[in-house]
Amino acid sequence: MTLQVYGDLGSGNCLKVKYIADATGTPYVWHDVPVRSGGTATPEFRALNPFGQMPVVVLDDGRPLAQSNAILRYLAQGSRFIPTDRYDAAKVDEWLFWEQYSHEPTVAVARSRVIYDGQDTAKLDPVLVGRANAALDRLEQALTGQVFLVGNAMSIADIALLVYTRSAPDAGLDLAARPAITRWIAACEQELGLTATAAVIKGQS
Amino acid sequence: MTLQVYGDLGSGNCLKVKYIADATGTPYVWHDVPVRSGGTATPEFRALNPFGQMPVVVLDDGRPLAQSNAILRYLAQGSRFIPTDRYDAAKVDEWLFWEQYSHEPTVAVARSRVIYDGQDTAKLDPVLVGRANAALDRLEQALTGQVFLVGNAMSIADIALLVYTRSAPDAGLDLAARPAITRWIAACEQELGLTATAAVIKGQS
Repeated sequence: MTLQVYGDLGSGNCLKVKYIADATGTPYVWHDVPVRSGGTATPEFRALNPFGQMPVVVLDDGRPLAQSNAILRYLAQGSRFIPTDRYDAAKVDEWLFWEQYSHEPTVAVARSRVIYDGQDTAKLDPVLVGRANAALDRLEQALTGQVFLVGNAMSIADIALLVYTRSAPDAGLDLAARPAITRWIAACEQELGLTATAAVIKGQS
Repeated sequence: MTLQVYGDLGSGNCLKVKYIADATGTPYVWHDVPVRSGGTATPEFRALNPFGQMPVVVLDDGRPLAQSNAILRYLAQGSRFIPTDRYDAAKVDEWLFWEQYSHEPTVAVARSRVIYDGQDTAKLDPVLVGRANAALDRLEQALTGQVFLVGNAMSIADIALLVYTRSAPDAGLDLAARPAITRWIAACEQELGLTATAAVIKGQS
């Protein structure tokens, strides 16, 4: 199988797909769809994903799949990135849904307002910043005394939370005061063979 | 296994757990935690779920699991509510993540402002109403020509989307103009043995 991936490497949601494909040795072709210049509004893209959201992957038989965390689950199936224990697998799901409901809409949105909309970090909506910090605090609490989020091994829960947590300083969110998160990021980077923390999310692979 | 469920039957996210437990014949004890009177802020509840969100279920061995859609996946495992086909199962996941990212934060939040905060439907934030209508339009599009969201059988994707779609009229959102959704709600109700559309989400089971 060679996967066709449609995404923008400046988007954390798209990076999730790159990380799991690389980590599982899934062959893929990356089709760059620039998120900020209408790439998701074209009829061609809407035919792949009527939701109009990135990333989207297309299987060999032409069938598309959207939603970054659904793609993570699909590509990780049968790999070490989904626990075999039923309860641990459910805890991974718990983190995946929390990420999309409470973390991405706060941490990633704050970053997006700075990186893409040019807002000053000091002038971000304080409600948004408060929620982003609450999400990071919850993550710090969960990672205290644990190397990874679930069990003793890296899973797709870590990949899902890694992408935007890693770029939180772009939004002026402080990771230096969160030692468990800082250590966890380093552990994830080592596991995935990533380097240059700051650079990756901005577009290089 | 007898599941301990902590939730509020006025919350659609909590109703998801009731529906799948009933549909799969999972024995459970329901512990009512009133969402609007601080029930999730107590130390006892925080010990079950540090996220402070409902619903939470506790297994026989005392281990808790949160996030309504993670609970849906856990309880539906091995049942007819998760497709055996790998691609279809991934499409169910796609809907589950879309529900938490794009549907619940718009359709359910609009309803919450009316039901719990006493806002007039005519005075709801037009941005919020626009997003809620866009989510319902997307659902209408997906259900046109299909009985259920994925394949030809009801799945947890339908249960996840059903709860707040069904109560959308509480927020002044129009279902009468969306015939595919209206038909799909009736099909889900029949499949789950539900009656009295308007009443269920307000607290009766």
